[in-house]
Amino acid sequence: MKIYSSAVAPNPRRVRIFLAEKEIQVPYEDVDISSAVNRKPEYRKNINPMGEVPVLELDDGTHIAESVAICRYFEELHPEPPLFGVGAKERALVEMWNRRMEFHVMLPVAQTFRNTSEFFKGRIAQVPEYGEVCRAAAEKIYTWLDEELATRRFIAGDRFTIADITALCAVDFGRVSKIRIQPEQKNLARWREEVSSRPSARA
Amino acid sequence: MKIYSSAVAPNPRRVRIFLAEKEIQVPYEDVDISSAVNRKPEYRKNINPMGEVPVLELDDGTHIAESVAICRYFEELHPEPPLFGVGAKERALVEMWNRRMEFHVMLPVAQTFRNTSEFFKGRIAQVPEYGEVCRAAAEKIYTWLDEELATRRFIAGDRFTIADITALCAVDFGRVSKIRIQPEQKNLARWREEVSSRPSARA
Repeated sequence: MKIYSSAVAPNPRRVRIFLAEKEIQVPYEDVDISSAVNRKPEYRKNINPMGEVPVLELDDGTHIAESVAICRYFEELHPEPPLFGVGAKERALVEMWNRRMEFHVMLPVAQTFRNTSEFFKGRIAQVPEYGEVCRAAAEKIYTWLDEELATRRFIAGDRFTIADITALCAVDFGRVSKIRIQPEQKNLARWREEVSSRPSARA
Repeated sequence: MKIYSSAVAPNPRRVRIFLAEKEIQVPYEDVDISSAVNRKPEYRKNINPMGEVPVLELDDGTHIAESVAICRYFEELHPEPPLFGVGAKERALVEMWNRRMEFHVMLPVAQTFRNTSEFFKGRIAQVPEYGEVCRAAAEKIYTWLDEELATRRFIAGDRFTIADITALCAVDFGRVSKIRIQPEQKNLARWREEVSSRPSARA
């Protein structure tokens, strides 16, 4: 078993933090995304047709792509500590919050980077105007998330979950595009400080 | 229990098909998205801060938003027929395929509509150039999906799953933006024909 990963990309970090919280050790194989090894036909054919990291390779050769699919696989094999919630209702709410963090925080942050960064220039069809729309959406959602975090310790409630991992990786990735927590967003800053101080955040 | 829904939007359709496959009856309350009722402060405050449908309201007043969170809640309460896979590995692969359908089919299809349609003109900051980037991405992914479906009956394997539901709702929604299965994409057309002929597709 191993995980195709990248030390500089936000989604592989989600899986590393998740596994660190569970104290699960899996070997990582670094994929050189700066040289676009992940976009080459060989990687697409043998590992992931979407050309993305991370990908979990099982001992039988099965490839499981998509960060949350990988995390859920390990949640099922190693339920403790629970990072997807406990019981049908809480699990549904954790999934809701994780998806909100994916679609409303990570997605605009990532699309800002894709459409405005030097890194992606010439690699994809960039639309800088759309990047700025996404930047504005990300900044607006930080205001909302700050208000939400006035009422509770973590994203989905009183328990640290995968939704915190997704949100942390998104917020940290935002800094690359100068999307930052504002001085008045004290709840968001308090939350980031707490989740960043967990040993898993350095995984 | 009830579900805030809309007859014309693709995500509420995912939940309706899912529940029809399970033969679960839940009352629907239509939200008039053409009048943007879902974007108004009252809806955001009381039902879903993201301003989206569908939302499941439980009898205790809890609101569960996000289509897949709603579906997974019902999967847990009514496991048969399984629509998220059986066993840790298959469940991970179904999640992978469902997410591929969300991020690589539904997302570009939806972003084409958002950025090029009359419906969203004046409602959001449209970037038509980005809409065309998404249209090209959707058309390219159809070519890939057609090749994938040469090897198996359904999106994630031999079993009908939530990944088929997501893909069907995405492909049908694409037609609104004139993103269509091409005549040479015979596997994709065969798959669509089969999943569309299930009674649930009319839910």
